Amino acid sequence: MMSDLINQFLTIRNRSEELCAGLITEDYVVQPAEFVSPPKWHLGHTSWFFETFLLAQKPGYEPFDPQYNYVFNSYYETIGARVIRTDRGNLSRPSVADIYAYRKHIDSQLSEWVTTWADDNPLVEILILGLHHEQQHQELLLTDIKYILGHNPLFPAYDPAFKEKESFSSTFDAFIQIDEGLYTIGHVADGFCYDNEQASHKVWLDRFEIAMQLVTNADYLEFIAAGGYADFSYWHAEGWDWLKNEHINGPLYWHEIEGEWMVYDLGGLRKVDPDGLLCHISFYEAAAYANWKGMRLPTEQEWEVAAIAFDWGRRWEWTNSAYLPYPGFKKAAGAIGEYNGKFMVNQMVLRGASDATPKDHSRITYRNFFHASARWQYTGIRLVKS
Amino acid sequence: MMSDLINQFLTIRNRSEELCAGLITEDYVVQPAEFVSPPKWHLGHTSWFFETFLLAQKPGYEPFDPQYNYVFNSYYETIGARVIRTDRGNLSRPSVADIYAYRKHIDSQLSEWVTTWADDNPLVEILILGLHHEQQHQELLLTDIKYILGHNPLFPAYDPAFKEKESFSSTFDAFIQIDEGLYTIGHVADGFCYDNEQASHKVWLDRFEIAMQLVTNADYLEFIAAGGYADFSYWHAEGWDWLKNEHINGPLYWHEIEGEWMVYDLGGLRKVDPDGLLCHISFYEAAAYANWKGMRLPTEQEWEVAAIAFDWGRRWEWTNSAYLPYPGFKKAAGAIGEYNGKFMVNQMVLRGASDATPKDHSRITYRNFFHASARWQYTGIRLVKS
Amino acid sequence: MMSDLINQFLTIRNRSEELCAGLITEDYVVQPAEFVSPPKWHLGHTSWFFETFLLAQKPGYEPFDPQYNYVFNSYYETIGARVIRTDRGNLSRPSVADIYAYRKHIDSQLSEWVTTWADDNPLVEILILGLHHEQQHQELLLTDIKYILGHNPLFPAYDPAFKEKESFSSTFDAFIQIDEGLYTIGHVADGFCYDNEQASHKVWLDRFEIAMQLVTNADYLEFIAAGGYADFSYWHAEGWDWLKNEHINGPLYWHEIEGEWMVYDLGGLRKVDPDGLLCHISFYEAAAYANWKGMRLPTEQEWEVAAIAFDWGRRWEWTNSAYLPYPGFKKAAGAIGEYNGKFMVNQMVLRGASDATPKDHSRITYRNFFHASARWQYTGIRLVKS
Amino acid sequence: MMSDLINQFLTIRNRSEELCAGLITEDYVVQPAEFVSPPKWHLGHTSWFFETFLLAQKPGYEPFDPQYNYVFNSYYETIGARVIRTDRGNLSRPSVADIYAYRKHIDSQLSEWVTTWADDNPLVEILILGLHHEQQHQELLLTDIKYILGHNPLFPAYDPAFKEKESFSSTFDAFIQIDEGLYTIGHVADGFCYDNEQASHKVWLDRFEIAMQLVTNADYLEFIAAGGYADFSYWHAEGWDWLKNEHINGPLYWHEIEGEWMVYDLGGLRKVDPDGLLCHISFYEAAAYANWKGMRLPTEQEWEVAAIAFDWGRRWEWTNSAYLPYPGFKKAAGAIGEYNGKFMVNQMVLRGASDATPKDHSRITYRNFFHASARWQYTGIRLVKS
Repeated sequence: MMSDLINQFLTIRNRSEELCAGLITEDYVVQPAEFVSPPKWHLGHTSWFFETFLLAQKPGYEPFDPQYNYVFNSYYETIGARVIRTDRGNLSRPSVADIYAYRKHIDSQLSEWVTTWADDNPLVEILILGLHHEQQHQELLLTDIKYILGHNPLFPAYDPAFKEKESFSSTFDAFIQIDEGLYTIGHVADGFCYDNEQASHKVWLDRFEIAMQLVTNADYLEFIAAGGYADFSYWHAEGWDWLKNEHINGPLYWHEIEGEWMVYDLGGLRKVDPDGLLCHISFYEAAAYANWKGMRLPTEQEWEVAAIAFDWGRRWEWTNSAYLPYPGFKKAAGAIGEYNGKFMVNQMVLRGASDATPKDHSRITYRNFFHASARWQYTGIRLVKS
Repeated sequence: MMSDLINQFLTIRNRSEELCAGLITEDYVVQPAEFVSPPKWHLGHTSWFFETFLLAQKPGYEPFDPQYNYVFNSYYETIGARVIRTDRGNLSRPSVADIYAYRKHIDSQLSEWVTTWADDNPLVEILILGLHHEQQHQELLLTDIKYILGHNPLFPAYDPAFKEKESFSSTFDAFIQIDEGLYTIGHVADGFCYDNEQASHKVWLDRFEIAMQLVTNADYLEFIAAGGYADFSYWHAEGWDWLKNEHINGPLYWHEIEGEWMVYDLGGLRKVDPDGLLCHISFYEAAAYANWKGMRLPTEQEWEVAAIAFDWGRRWEWTNSAYLPYPGFKKAAGAIGEYNGKFMVNQMVLRGASDATPKDHSRITYRNFFHASARWQYTGIRLVKS
Repeated sequence: MMSDLINQFLTIRNRSEELCAGLITEDYVVQPAEFVSPPKWHLGHTSWFFETFLLAQKPGYEPFDPQYNYVFNSYYETIGARVIRTDRGNLSRPSVADIYAYRKHIDSQLSEWVTTWADDNPLVEILILGLHHEQQHQELLLTDIKYILGHNPLFPAYDPAFKEKESFSSTFDAFIQIDEGLYTIGHVADGFCYDNEQASHKVWLDRFEIAMQLVTNADYLEFIAAGGYADFSYWHAEGWDWLKNEHINGPLYWHEIEGEWMVYDLGGLRKVDPDGLLCHISFYEAAAYANWKGMRLPTEQEWEVAAIAFDWGRRWEWTNSAYLPYPGFKKAAGAIGEYNGKFMVNQMVLRGASDATPKDHSRITYRNFFHASARWQYTGIRLVKS
Repeated sequence: MMSDLINQFLTIRNRSEELCAGLITEDYVVQPAEFVSPPKWHLGHTSWFFETFLLAQKPGYEPFDPQYNYVFNSYYETIGARVIRTDRGNLSRPSVADIYAYRKHIDSQLSEWVTTWADDNPLVEILILGLHHEQQHQELLLTDIKYILGHNPLFPAYDPAFKEKESFSSTFDAFIQIDEGLYTIGHVADGFCYDNEQASHKVWLDRFEIAMQLVTNADYLEFIAAGGYADFSYWHAEGWDWLKNEHINGPLYWHEIEGEWMVYDLGGLRKVDPDGLLCHISFYEAAAYANWKGMRLPTEQEWEVAAIAFDWGRRWEWTNSAYLPYPGFKKAAGAIGEYNGKFMVNQMVLRGASDATPKDHSRITYRNFFHASARWQYTGIRLVKS
C-alpha cells in the first residue's frame, strides 16, 4: 500500500511540472495581480508544504534551505514570518532551476522515507492532504499562467494547439425539478475530504428547478447586447461599484475589437465562440445575469442535491451561498487547522470543478470559495427557477 | 384610521427631533467616518423619503427645493445623481434651520394630504414603510451622534445624566437547549415587515444550546487579559488583517489609560463597568471571542427559533449567518426595491434590537446587517454550544 | 508706543472676525479638502499662537483650556501632539461660541499684559510676528470660505453684493524691458519681514521683458479653446498626470454648463467675465499657458526687480522659482524656527499679493509658496519674454 | 569618421550587455519598486530609442516587432501609448532571448546604415544623443540590478569578488574657500551636452567654503548614534513625514542586525565599513545631516564653480538646488524635446557622477535630478559652510 501511495505521490508531483512544460523561464517569475502567484512560487510552495508538515518530523532531517520557509510559506501564521503576498513577483531568486532542484530533493527524500512507514502511520493522512493541496495548486497554476499570458500585450499562446473541449448545445434548455424535502448534505463516503465538507447534516429544501446546462457565450452576449452592464437594477450595490471602478463591460479576457468580441484563451486571441460555455465572470456578474433572466443562482445545498442529475465539471459554478461552516464543523489542531476555517467570511461558494481541475480532484461535496469579484478561475453560471 | 396613522406619523417624526435636543448646531454637521452621516443629513434624508416616494405623487406638489433630491438621496439609483457618501460632512448648507423648516413643511403637507386618503389607498403601505425607515434612521442617528461626540478629543457628553440601564448579572450562566427538528423561519404574522424577512420557510436545525444572557464586559476583559488580541488562532484571516491594520486592541470607545480601561458612553468618559453588557465589537471580535471560549455564534435561524425563550433587545447580536435572500424572496418594483436586496452580499446578519432601537421597532424576525468590521452600532455577543 | 501696538493688535484681531460676519454656524465647521481648514479652526489657531508663544510666558497664566493645545496646534512639532490635519473638519467641539470666547479671553489678557511691557521687551517681536501670522490666516480664511461655499451644490453666496474690483483691460499689452545686471534681492528696509526674505543678497540677471498686466479670462479662454488642456506638449510630466487624474479642464470654480463657462465667486455663480483677471489656476496650468504663448513665467528674482514698474496686488503670481533658502538664510531658534524653513522643498514661489490679502500685509520681498497643484488661492499669471 | 562613430556605438552597446553578464534569466524580469525597471526593459528600451528616432527614418525599414513600440516606450507622449510604468515587471514576454535578438538586429541595421551617412548628416547628432541615453541607462541598469538583488531575502551577490574602490580617509577634513564674484555656469565647451546644461549664463555667488571630501560612513554613524533620525528639528516637514511613513532609520541597504550595522553591496551582505563613502541616502537625509552638522548642502552653481578644485565622481552629490531651466533654456522640437524640460518641477539636482556612471559619461556641467526621497542611486553628501 505504501508503494501505491508513493506512485500516486510521484504522479501528482510530476503533473505540476508537466503543466509548466510550455513555459519559458520568464513566465515562471511574474505576478501581474495580487491574487496571482508566479508559477515558480507554486512549485516551491507545494514542496515546502511536504517539507514543513512531513519531512521536518523526520529525525535528522535538515531543511533544504533555511530561508525557504520565509519564501514559500503562504499564510500559515503558526509557521512564522513570510514574504508578503504582493512581493512574490519581486523575487528573482530562488531561481527556477533552484526550485526544480528543491522539488527533486523533496520527492526523493519523501519517497524514500515513506517506504519505511507502517500502514497506520498517522502521517499518511497528512501526505494525502498534501497531495490534494498540490492538486488545488495545479488548478491555480493553470489559471495563474493564463492570467500571466493573457495580460501580456503580445498575447502569447500557452499551447497553440489548445482547443476548448466540445461545447454544450446552446439550444438545449431543460430544467430538472427537485421536490421539497429533507436532504442530507456534506461528505459521508469513504475517502478523503476537506474539513469544510463536514459534518454531514440535514437540510430542508423547498421545491426548485435547476438548469441541466450551463450558460453559454451566446446567452451572455444577449445580456451584454441588452445593456446588462449599464443598468444598475440587475446588480448588487457592491457589484455596481465594482463594475464602475474597474470599468468592466464583459467577462475577463474578452476584448471588444473593432465591434467584435474577441477572447484570449490558452491557444491565443480568438473570436468568442457563441456555442462555448461562458467563463471568467465574477459572482456579481453571475447574479446580475440571473436577475436579468428573472431567475437566480442555486444555493450550494440545492446544487449538491441536484448535481447527481446533470453533467458538471467544466466550470466552477457560482452559488448564492456564502462560505460558512457546516453544522458541527471542526477545524484540525495546529497549522493544518489554518487550511479552511479562517477564510469563512466574505467569500462565496462555488461548486463543481472546472477544465483546470485535475481529473480525480473533484467531488460532489467539494466546496470552493472566492471573493465575489474574482474572475480568473474557470467560473460559470447555472440558473435556478423557483 | 387615517387619523391614527397621522398621529403615529407625527409622533415618530417628532422623536427624531427629540433625539437631537441635546446637540449644538456644530454637532449636526460633521462626518468623522465614512459610515457615519451628519445628524442634519439624517433629518433631511428621512424627510426626502416621504417627499420622494409620497408627496411627489400628489397632484400639483412642488418640491420644497429642487436641489434637495441631489443632497438627500442616499443610494437610490432609480432616483438619480446624489452627493457622494464621503461628502455628506463637507456640506455646511442646507443649514440646520433650513432642514427643520423642510421637516415642518413635509409634516404639514403630508398630514394634510393623508386626511384625504381612503383606507385602502395603496400609498398607506408606503407611508408605513417610511415610518419604519425613519425609525431605522433614529437608531443610526443615535449611534452616529455617539461616534461624533465619542471621537472628539474633548469627549463631550450627550447627556451628562445618561445612565446605562440595569445590567445583567455576570454570574448567571444558563444555556437553553433546543432540540433538532424542522422549524419555520421568517415573518408570517399580520403587520409590517421588510421584504427581507420573507418568504416564511422551513429549516432543519440540529440540536444546540444557546446562552440565556449576553457576554458582559467582565467576560470580555478576561479575553483581553488572556491575550485574545495577540493570538491569530482565534481570528478569521480577514479579521486578523483588520486588527493589525487598524491597531485594534479592544472594543470601540474603550481606552486603556494608565493601566485602566475607560469607556466613552453618552454620559462621558467613565470606567468600564464589569457588570455592563459588552458593546461595540465587530463580527471579527465576536467570532474570535466565541472561538476562545470554545463555543460559536448562533446562526440567524437558531437565534430566531430560540429567542422566544430569552430576553433580548439590549444589543444587536452578531450571528454567524451571511446576509442572503430567504427562499422565495421577492424585491419590490421600482426604487423601493432598492431597499434591501441589493445589499445581500458580504454582510453579516445581526438579530434582536438594541438600546438605540425605537421601542416599537423590533421583531423576532427582523434582520439587521452590517459589514464584519462594523462596530459603531450597539453590538453584542450571545454564545452557542453544540 | 505700546498703546499703538495694542490698537493694531485689536484691529487685526477684529478683522478676522469681520471676515466671518456673513457665515452661519455650519460654515465654520466643515473641511471639504485636506488643504482647507474650517473657519473656526483658523479663529482658534491664531488665538492659540498668541497664547502659546506669548501668554504662556506670563507668570501665573493658566491655559484657557489645556486641551486646546492639542486641538489648535497646526504643525509645531516642538509644541507637541495635535489633531491630524484631515480631522480638523471632524470636530464639532469646541463650538463656535467657545472659540469666540477663547478669542475674547486672549485679546483681553494680552492687551492688558502688553501695557506693562517696556518698549524694548523682546516679546514685542513675537507679538508682531503673531499679527503677521493672523493676517496670513485671514487670507486663508477667505480662500477656505470660498472653497467651502463654492463646493456646496447650492452655491450659496458669501456676500450677494460682492463685486469683483474693476478689471484691467485685456487689450493693453505692454512689456517692460529690464537690462542685464547685478541686482539686490531680499528684505533690507526697516520693519517686519519673515526670515525667508533674508539675507538680502546680490543676483545677476540676464536681460528680460515682463508684462505690465496679468493674464485675463479672455486670454485664458483662448488657451482652452485652442485645446490647451488636451495637448501634453505644453505641460510638465507631473502636470499632465495631475490633469488626467483629477479630470481638470479649466480653472477651479469654473463650470462648463450648457456650452457656457460659469464661475463661482463670492457673489454666487455667474458667467465668466472676459475682462476679469484669470484666477485659481495651478502652477502647472500657469506654466502650460506660458508655454503655449511661447513665453515663460518670471523667476522670483526677476519679479522682485521689475515689480517697482508695474501694478501688483490683485493675484498671487506664480513664478518659475522653487521655494529655497536665500544665501545666508538663518531660521529662528525653537518652535518659531518651524515657521518657514522646514517647508523649503517641493513648493513653488508666488509673488505679489491678492484680493484676499489684508491691506498692509504685502511687500515687494514677500515670498508665498504652495505646491504646484494648489489652486484655491487667488493665483494668476504674468508672462515674461526673453 | 563614421567608422569611429560605429565603433563607439558598438562599444557602448556592448557595455550594456556586459553589465548583465552575471545575471540569471529571472533577474532580468522583476520590478520590486515602481522606480525600478527590469533589466530586460532597459535593454529593450535603449534599442527602441535607436529604432524609433533613427531607423524608422530609413527608407523601407520595417519595425522588428510592431508591438515593441508599446512595450518599450518610456514616457514619450509624442510616440503614443505604452505599458504603464508599474506593469513593466508584469511582462514575461518579450523574453530575454527575444530582446537580445532585438539588440543584435538594431546594432547590425544601424551600423550598416551609418556607413552610408555623410559627415554632416543631421542624424549624427541624434545617434550621439542615443549613445548618451544608453549610458544613462547603464547607470540605472546597475542601480536597478542592485535594488533587485539587494531586496531579495537571499541577498545574492552580483559579483562575489566585487570590492568597493579605495576609500577616502575620514580624518582628512579640509574646506576650499571660494570668493564672492560673478561666475559663468553651464556648458560652453565643444562636444555633447544635454539641453538642460544650457544656456551658459552668469551667476553671482557669495563667498562660501566647500568640503574637499565627501561624508563617510563613520561620519554618518555619528549622526545616527546622536539620534538624528529621531529629532524632527533637523528635517524638512516632508522629510519627517517620509521618514515616519516609511519607517526609515538608516541609509538604503543598511540593516541593523543584532546591534551591528550591515550593508548590502554588489558583493553581498557585509559589515558597514567606517572608512567607506556614505551612499544611498535621500535628499531629505542629506539635508538633515548637514543641518545637524550646522552646515548646509551646496547649490548647484556653487558646486560647478568649486568642482575644479576637488576630486569628484564617486557619488552623485545632492545639491540644495531644485531642477529648473537655466536662463535661455530651449527644448528641442518633437519627441526629443520630451527628454528633459518636462521634468523641471519637484525634483532636486545632483551633481558629479558615481561609481555606476560609465567612464566617459560625466561632465562638470552635467545635471542629474531625482525626487527628494530617491535613494537607490549612488548618492552622497558634500558639505558647505557659509
